[in-house]
Amino acid sequence: MALTLYGSSYSRSLRVLWMLKELDLPFEHIPLQWQECGQNADYLAINPTGTIPTLVDDGFVLAESLAINLHLARRYGRLWPAAEQDQALCWQWSLWAVASMETSYIQWAAHTLWLAPEARDPAKAAAATEALQRPLARLEQALQGQPWLLGHDFSVADLNVAGCINGLRRFDLTAYPTMAAWLNRCLDRPAYRAATQLP
Amino acid sequence: MALTLYGSSYSRSLRVLWMLKELDLPFEHIPLQWQECGQNADYLAINPTGTIPTLVDDGFVLAESLAINLHLARRYGRLWPAAEQDQALCWQWSLWAVASMETSYIQWAAHTLWLAPEARDPAKAAAATEALQRPLARLEQALQGQPWLLGHDFSVADLNVAGCINGLRRFDLTAYPTMAAWLNRCLDRPAYRAATQLP
Repeated sequence: MALTLYGSSYSRSLRVLWMLKELDLPFEHIPLQWQECGQNADYLAINPTGTIPTLVDDGFVLAESLAINLHLARRYGRLWPAAEQDQALCWQWSLWAVASMETSYIQWAAHTLWLAPEARDPAKAAAATEALQRPLARLEQALQGQPWLLGHDFSVADLNVAGCINGLRRFDLTAYPTMAAWLNRCLDRPAYRAATQLP
Repeated sequence: MALTLYGSSYSRSLRVLWMLKELDLPFEHIPLQWQECGQNADYLAINPTGTIPTLVDDGFVLAESLAINLHLARRYGRLWPAAEQDQALCWQWSLWAVASMETSYIQWAAHTLWLAPEARDPAKAAAATEALQRPLARLEQALQGQPWLLGHDFSVADLNVAGCINGLRRFDLTAYPTMAAWLNRCLDRPAYRAATQLP
């Protein structure tokens, strides 16, 4: 087994670093920054999309952070549910996170946390805050009576959704106490904290 | 086997109707419109997200059009590659389509095709046209020397990507002849045409 992950922890690659730490796999980490990956000819030869992360797993090249995590969970046999229906729910939650939550999350985070204060647009932050209410309510409901999205066990579904919205710990989640507790459970895992320490 | 699909063909449900026709499966079709699904209490009891489509497969409830298609392809054994690496590429392409292409596609289509002419914003159409160039170039490159995204065989990867951008047949694809030919091959399939005839 030879695993190489391209992508700095200050990018979507953090999600995959988290998964690699959960699985306790040895890997080579090339902490490419998102600002440089689209212009790096050596990297574009590996991933023509020019995005990070990219995983190379014994020569097999895979892009898209959440797809990489699904692949790692299945291939290395952890955080991957045994039942095919539960696996389909991992696909559902991963696609849902990207389609329904990630864009609004990024807009909120950019205009609340990431941009220099003078570059932040309060109207954009407010619009994103509003757009996040419905997916937050969906998570609040899905987690009623169960600690994790699939039930009793932490899985790639939780990791992929929480990994898309990790900065929401700094969002007002008062109306979503169950979701807030779940997000804390996810992000308090030692593997997540270890991943954030990587370059 | 009892399959029920909720969602009008004038919505993302078309992608799943296409898959159901490819697999030649019997199913009950409830052509719910997207305008009504978020307020329909009976429907919200099935899918609390209030989006269409939803599949109910022998009591198993699954949302997210592309996840439903991955599930159907695997469960019913067609358009699903045998190799695990190729399956991971189906996940990659499905997530890529949603993350990198669908939002810009919808903005382009809304301001070019769907909205009443007086409601269209040429600046938004132009911005979306610009944003689509990079993912179109990615598809153009991925299809060099092979008819389908995974190689020799049409798969759920092709169906899921093409299903996200079906209206691009009316986009200027002159710079992307390989991609344009692939999109036509996808949308000329009898199953796609049959799906578009459904309510």
